[in-house]
Amino acid sequence: MGKNEREENGFDPENHNQEEGEKKKHLKEEELSVERVFENQEVPSWREQLTVRAFVVSFALSILFSIIVMKLNLTIGIIPSLNVSAGLLGFFFVKTWTKLLHKSGLLRQPFTRQENTVIQTCVVASSGIAFSGGFGSYLFAMTERIAKQSTDTLDVKKLSLGWIIGFLFIVSFLGLFSVVPLRKIMIIDFKLTYPSGTATAHLINSFHTPQGAKLAKKQVRELGKFFTFSFLWGFFQWFYTAGDNCGFASFPSLGLKAFDNKFFFDFSATYVGVGMICPYIVNISVLLGGIISWGLMWPLIEDRKGDWYSADLGSGSFSGIQGYRVFIAIAMILGDGLYNFIKVLSRTLLGLFHQLRYKDVSSELPVADHSSDVSSQSQLSFDDKRRTQLFLKDQIPIMFAVGGYVAIAAISMATLPHIFHQLKWYYILVIYIFAPALAFCNAYGCGLTDWSLASTYGKLAIFTIGAWAGAAHGGVLAGLAACGVMMNIVSTASDLMQDFKTGYLTLASPRSMFVSQIIGTAMGCVISPCVFWLFYKAFDDLGQPGSQYPAPNAVVFRNMVLLGVKGFSSLPKNCLLLCYLFFGAAIVINLIKDLAGKKWGRFIPLPMAMAIPFYIGSYFAIDMCLGSLILFVWEKINKAKADALGPAVASGLICGDGIWTLPASILALAGVKPPICMKFLSRGNNAKVDKFLGS
Amino acid sequence: MGKNEREENGFDPENHNQEEGEKKKHLKEEELSVERVFENQEVPSWREQLTVRAFVVSFALSILFSIIVMKLNLTIGIIPSLNVSAGLLGFFFVKTWTKLLHKSGLLRQPFTRQENTVIQTCVVASSGIAFSGGFGSYLFAMTERIAKQSTDTLDVKKLSLGWIIGFLFIVSFLGLFSVVPLRKIMIIDFKLTYPSGTATAHLINSFHTPQGAKLAKKQVRELGKFFTFSFLWGFFQWFYTAGDNCGFASFPSLGLKAFDNKFFFDFSATYVGVGMICPYIVNISVLLGGIISWGLMWPLIEDRKGDWYSADLGSGSFSGIQGYRVFIAIAMILGDGLYNFIKVLSRTLLGLFHQLRYKDVSSELPVADHSSDVSSQSQLSFDDKRRTQLFLKDQIPIMFAVGGYVAIAAISMATLPHIFHQLKWYYILVIYIFAPALAFCNAYGCGLTDWSLASTYGKLAIFTIGAWAGAAHGGVLAGLAACGVMMNIVSTASDLMQDFKTGYLTLASPRSMFVSQIIGTAMGCVISPCVFWLFYKAFDDLGQPGSQYPAPNAVVFRNMVLLGVKGFSSLPKNCLLLCYLFFGAAIVINLIKDLAGKKWGRFIPLPMAMAIPFYIGSYFAIDMCLGSLILFVWEKINKAKADALGPAVASGLICGDGIWTLPASILALAGVKPPICMKFLSRGNNAKVDKFLGS
Repeated sequence: MGKNEREENGFDPENHNQEEGEKKKHLKEEELSVERVFENQEVPSWREQLTVRAFVVSFALSILFSIIVMKLNLTIGIIPSLNVSAGLLGFFFVKTWTKLLHKSGLLRQPFTRQENTVIQTCVVASSGIAFSGGFGSYLFAMTERIAKQSTDTLDVKKLSLGWIIGFLFIVSFLGLFSVVPLRKIMIIDFKLTYPSGTATAHLINSFHTPQGAKLAKKQVRELGKFFTFSFLWGFFQWFYTAGDNCGFASFPSLGLKAFDNKFFFDFSATYVGVGMICPYIVNISVLLGGIISWGLMWPLIEDRKGDWYSADLGSGSFSGIQGYRVFIAIAMILGDGLYNFIKVLSRTLLGLFHQLRYKDVSSELPVADHSSDVSSQSQLSFDDKRRTQLFLKDQIPIMFAVGGYVAIAAISMATLPHIFHQLKWYYILVIYIFAPALAFCNAYGCGLTDWSLASTYGKLAIFTIGAWAGAAHGGVLAGLAACGVMMNIVSTASDLMQDFKTGYLTLASPRSMFVSQIIGTAMGCVISPCVFWLFYKAFDDLGQPGSQYPAPNAVVFRNMVLLGVKGFSSLPKNCLLLCYLFFGAAIVINLIKDLAGKKWGRFIPLPMAMAIPFYIGSYFAIDMCLGSLILFVWEKINKAKADALGPAVASGLICGDGIWTLPASILALAGVKPPICMKFLSRGNNAKVDKFLGS
Repeated sequence: MGKNEREENGFDPENHNQEEGEKKKHLKEEELSVERVFENQEVPSWREQLTVRAFVVSFALSILFSIIVMKLNLTIGIIPSLNVSAGLLGFFFVKTWTKLLHKSGLLRQPFTRQENTVIQTCVVASSGIAFSGGFGSYLFAMTERIAKQSTDTLDVKKLSLGWIIGFLFIVSFLGLFSVVPLRKIMIIDFKLTYPSGTATAHLINSFHTPQGAKLAKKQVRELGKFFTFSFLWGFFQWFYTAGDNCGFASFPSLGLKAFDNKFFFDFSATYVGVGMICPYIVNISVLLGGIISWGLMWPLIEDRKGDWYSADLGSGSFSGIQGYRVFIAIAMILGDGLYNFIKVLSRTLLGLFHQLRYKDVSSELPVADHSSDVSSQSQLSFDDKRRTQLFLKDQIPIMFAVGGYVAIAAISMATLPHIFHQLKWYYILVIYIFAPALAFCNAYGCGLTDWSLASTYGKLAIFTIGAWAGAAHGGVLAGLAACGVMMNIVSTASDLMQDFKTGYLTLASPRSMFVSQIIGTAMGCVISPCVFWLFYKAFDDLGQPGSQYPAPNAVVFRNMVLLGVKGFSSLPKNCLLLCYLFFGAAIVINLIKDLAGKKWGRFIPLPMAMAIPFYIGSYFAIDMCLGSLILFVWEKINKAKADALGPAVASGLICGDGIWTLPASILALAGVKPPICMKFLSRGNNAKVDKFLGS
């Protein structure tokens, strides 16, 4: 799962739209004053919005968030929305910077919300690559390490920093060019909500009012406190990890039996923070999935060892228990993906149909009804007028966008087959013909529901291109590479349209946004592979099941492409039946969730989230539920404070632990090993060990 | 060290007196209103003050506090003042009880502060036996277990529940009878301060005013919260202690090198709580002592292994490094004890001299000057009048006290030699002739300075009786038993006089206090040995160095008596020189402390506290300093809250962890062993163990 998956898991589109609608109404009233507040501030020209300091800060934050996203990619694959942390930290750095300059009398340009948006955009574009680059999924799935686990002897590709950076540069800019022409339609004409983009804009606007700045200061302080704590805690933990199964991450806090079935609290500040950011239902779903799989199913299936599958197989073999774990997870993810794909696509089409047919009378639009309350007002409010005026001022010529797209597509077709010779140029052509349409669908769907289906589109590419190429002709690598191309385009499209919405609401020029996106993407294409390389070289057990960095999605993606290429023949006994069952269950659960209505639907778990622990175990679910519990208790005690500071605390926990991985991997590269092993032994083993050490 | 030692360590008499003086002045103003507030409440007769419910609650609390005191005795030997916790818990239990009865309409008698004082007195008398019974010092020092460590082949005595209870019953009531006749002189005539007793009375009085009850409720809630946390934390830790050197108590939180020198945080809620109650200077002194001994001296002496002492000796031999540890600690304790004995005794005599010579013009009294500000007012205040009137109402006939003393002394002389045949009847006679004078000295000194010298008087008995009997005639056992007799008398004397002061200030009848003390002492004579027996049977390694319960004072007391009996001949090379050095240093430090004045003196460490970690290491010093740090930060953030709730939090931490030892020892007795060992291995050892377990 990735950033986008999180949003798939996290947001029930119905609820969300309702909430957003209410927020929007509420915002509406406030917005009447928002631009009045800023009326006396001159909006800087688009060139002035692009300052050097903004990109220096963006660069630093990009590295930070790339590390965090990479770590999450490689450990559990759930990536929460880091927009708030990025916004807060960006504001904090530039504000400190300008304050210092102001005191020294050197400040030439005040810090504006447009500049803040530029930073936000650049960081989102850059750290987005860490997810869409597939370092935890399709790209890593190509390696021999992952192939060995799936025990397939099919094509693998040796990773090297050179071709990864090249590949990213080729595929990452396409999404950018594909959405630019749609900018005006989505934002001005359709007036789509883009909940995340709107929320970010709201945050940035609030920072630049006096009260907002005060709250921001408080939040930053809280973030800093928990950042420090989390960093030091990571540092402290490090000392006790001298060997495998050492340290707090192997703490059998619920007993040895539970530990063997991957139920334990692993003392990770990151997942506690992630749990505080993710909605309760995601955390509960993950825990439920863990209980169903590791608590019930796997032990039951293991009892059938020797009957359902050969008892001689290693614990990592995909013909054994591991096969059940991975394929049932895939079935559930695909079931959920398919359901939501059809749901969102049909809504998108229905929405489009209404949008085009009724134009301004779009209040009948079934989903985006609230947002269209606004657009249906024939006379535009002050805010809307001013925003539209500024949004349309700096145009990006449509020919520039189309030309850019065609040029990059041509370069891709010429160069990509050299990187992956299994990926023929005509596969790429087909992808690039369909891509803009899919990018549009994703950007539109995301605007309506905040729900990006990037990895679902990627899976679509895996199966179609994989099957088309076939096993004999390198279908595995072709499928994975195609997945990469597809994911990059659709993911960038929705991310960047969110940014445009943010820019629209903060009066940032689309041209400065576009430049920031280009610079951010370029940064990401270099930073993300380097960060990945650091992890890859520093941690030998990257991608090994049961290790610190199991990279679960890499295994899942490789097995998906194998399914597409080879069919179901390799599955162990009864596995296919169970897969059908869970595939169906995912669809049925979703259906019930949608039919149950808002009141009861929110108590129905999310199949996608349930599938995550199937493969890697539910230890992180315990962490995340602890995060939920902390937030829940905090909200009971002081709701206002919890709402205001909760995200800052969570961000601090995530960022501190995340940034600790930087020194940790540098120590590992330098060959510095921790001095102590905190080991957990059963009483029997302990007696043996004591005897052994005594003698 | 014991409860009284703690007070020796904890309170600088000068500062204390000053503080007390100020408190007293402050109290004075309040006191003007205190008895006015209670004016309309009828004081119940002394029989009514002694309710069944009071003794039921006292019994439960006695068990709780006996367990806590016993645990502290057997682990580090520092016992903080548990008066506040006893007061709080007593109030809480009876208040809940009366509330329930009140609701059901069955309440016949309201809960009065006199009843509260009766509970307080009973619990103090009872849990005092857990200290003065010498289970962590002289009594345990008689056993073979401790003798083996000292490698002396002299007399030992097998412990058995029967003779311990008998012994305690014989010696514990003497102190009681010896102070009763002095009651009026100390409290009414001399108007001694008795800081602890006054503070307790203040607490009890405040509980029974409406605002006080509200604060008490808050404190009880905080106590309950931390009690639960501490209990559960103890429970959780238990699971990971499947073998020696397992669990959180062996966590090398400052690294393996530091752990080998006993510098680590051992995650004990008890000592963190103790650290919060003890004054900062005690904790700093303990840490400083640890750094000087385990950080500097022992490593340096160990470098001389083979030169200063034979390299073949086991690590536990008293002719080796262990000898330096114990004897240097003893030297320092004796130096400090001697200095303070002389200081307090001279003050006592000087004070008495002034008291008797100038009677009411006692403002010239050098030490008790502040307290005498009060007594020098010729017209008594309303409070004083009322208190004196009630204090003198219920008399205890002096002949009853003297008769009791003589009767018990006679019984002692007849029976004690049967328990310890080395303790001749004439030794006992000598002790009993001097005892009342020493008891008076201790009670008077304690009234002036809050400083009980019980264990110093005990050590005096060890040396004198031990040397008198001589090695050949069982001087070891005679000395230790004499120490027990002496300690019980003088310790009870000062404790109970504190109680009388509390009773005076809460209008409790001396007669009800006396009955409560007798019942409490009787309870303690049964409860304490039983609790000790539970520990003794449950934990096989009780008294072993490096174990969970090293009982450091038992080793120290045994070696003291050996010194007294055998002289310095057995000490390793240069040890005597170092002992002289530290003996002198203790005196010099004390002298500097007294001469430096209040401003700088409070920064000078306390030699007694510094000596404690010499033998057992400074892990608990880290815990205690953490407690100090928590309190310090809390005071910085919110002084009022920290002052009001700090003692409650500390009590909760101590009581929860303390009470956990009850189920822990029951589990140990039942043979239930923890399932997991949390082990800490160096990287090298870990690799070996992994290989061993793998093969």
